[in-house]
Amino acid sequence: MQTNVVKQLNQAMQTVMKTARVQVIAKMGAHLTVAEKTSRRDLVTNVDHSNEDFLVHQIRELDPDAHILAEEGTGDQVDTMAGHVWIVDPIDGTMNFVHQRNHFAMMVGLYVDGEPTLGYIYNVMANKLYAGGPQIGVTLNNEPLVAPANLDLSAGLFGASAPLLIQNRFNMQTVVAQSLGPRIMGSAGIQISQVLAGELVGYLSYLRPWDFAAGRVLAESLGLVVTRVDGTPVDMLSSGAVLIATKRAQRSILAIV
Amino acid sequence: MQTNVVKQLNQAMQTVMKTARVQVIAKMGAHLTVAEKTSRRDLVTNVDHSNEDFLVHQIRELDPDAHILAEEGTGDQVDTMAGHVWIVDPIDGTMNFVHQRNHFAMMVGLYVDGEPTLGYIYNVMANKLYAGGPQIGVTLNNEPLVAPANLDLSAGLFGASAPLLIQNRFNMQTVVAQSLGPRIMGSAGIQISQVLAGELVGYLSYLRPWDFAAGRVLAESLGLVVTRVDGTPVDMLSSGAVLIATKRAQRSILAIV
Repeated sequence: MQTNVVKQLNQAMQTVMKTARVQVIAKMGAHLTVAEKTSRRDLVTNVDHSNEDFLVHQIRELDPDAHILAEEGTGDQVDTMAGHVWIVDPIDGTMNFVHQRNHFAMMVGLYVDGEPTLGYIYNVMANKLYAGGPQIGVTLNNEPLVAPANLDLSAGLFGASAPLLIQNRFNMQTVVAQSLGPRIMGSAGIQISQVLAGELVGYLSYLRPWDFAAGRVLAESLGLVVTRVDGTPVDMLSSGAVLIATKRAQRSILAIV
Repeated sequence: MQTNVVKQLNQAMQTVMKTARVQVIAKMGAHLTVAEKTSRRDLVTNVDHSNEDFLVHQIRELDPDAHILAEEGTGDQVDTMAGHVWIVDPIDGTMNFVHQRNHFAMMVGLYVDGEPTLGYIYNVMANKLYAGGPQIGVTLNNEPLVAPANLDLSAGLFGASAPLLIQNRFNMQTVVAQSLGPRIMGSAGIQISQVLAGELVGYLSYLRPWDFAAGRVLAESLGLVVTRVDGTPVDMLSSGAVLIATKRAQRSILAIV
């Protein structure tokens, strides 16, 4: 897409995200309807659904011919990354949303013929909106975000996934031991935004497309790397263990896992 | 102490904490001097020292005959809880302070003849000040804080310590498995404040007196329980594994550890 078109779309989507945030916070004051999806740790609420409906509707207004892959199924059946594909997670960290009313994110990513184009991660309660893409740079609440320092694993904190850490999958206990320590927030969106902000040198977790679609756009725009755990490219239509990290931390981590 | 004296002291201490916060944030804009204490994961900065100096000085002004136990050694040698004892942690989560510029706390607790009397946990970057004690109740930013629901372990998220979780000390992996999941923030102050806020049903970690002195006052004021990991009373002059939890979660956890 032409840069001026990307810029216009970015402005419009930031407005959409801010409106969505206000609506979500308003609904948190009322009773939440909570349902289990696959287990007692995999929740969905009325707000996941209503916010997804809102985001999908707004994206259709802005980009009528696009395909939309959305976590709760409001969007399209998406089998190819050809054309415009939007990937939507209306509430990431639903467990935190329900039990903490804190530490959750809403995320949207746009890919054009497979190319990362625009990304949005909104840490709702901290009111931090990370937005942008490779053509226009990344902002945090409209201020340019400085790319994080290219620190090695040993020089930073590491974003861990609890199941992978406890089971020592991918030697995650060794990864953590080489780092300055693990942090577990319970939301991919929050932890990826911490990598963007330089608060973590990396994050490794089993992720579905909507968990890292926005984060990949933003991370790559800032010179961070996003790969599968074996170092191969990610596929935005499949799930698996994904690593988001600084270049140096990635090299160290890939040597361990 | 008489309740009106406690109230006056509380107002004065809240002002001290807010002034300390402004000073700490101002110093974060300048270069930090970072030193290792016992290991590369045990840091102290110029701001820990300057903030401890400030807090100790202010407490001496307010309560000249008190004894002060402070993490970085600015205070007194304290061997007894007789009389007024203030326990000060100027920056809790120094690793986060240095590497995230986020997720750290300042904490102060007052004990009178061993009785929990006043406590302050300030989540600096979120600007959340938890304050109060058993005589006057607990506030969050001057608004009364509602006591968290007495949820069982299985109904909530659990605040874990990374070393205890990885090494499965106190069967922490079983504790986590019974909960809705672990969270690791890297700051006792932040995680104890999450228990106060009902974001976590409990927190278990190896703690030193200044890590939980403030939190114990606030937690007990809200009907939460604070014990050693074997269920026995804590001693404010020694270190060990300490559990802060709802009553129900505590019973479940003590049956596991």
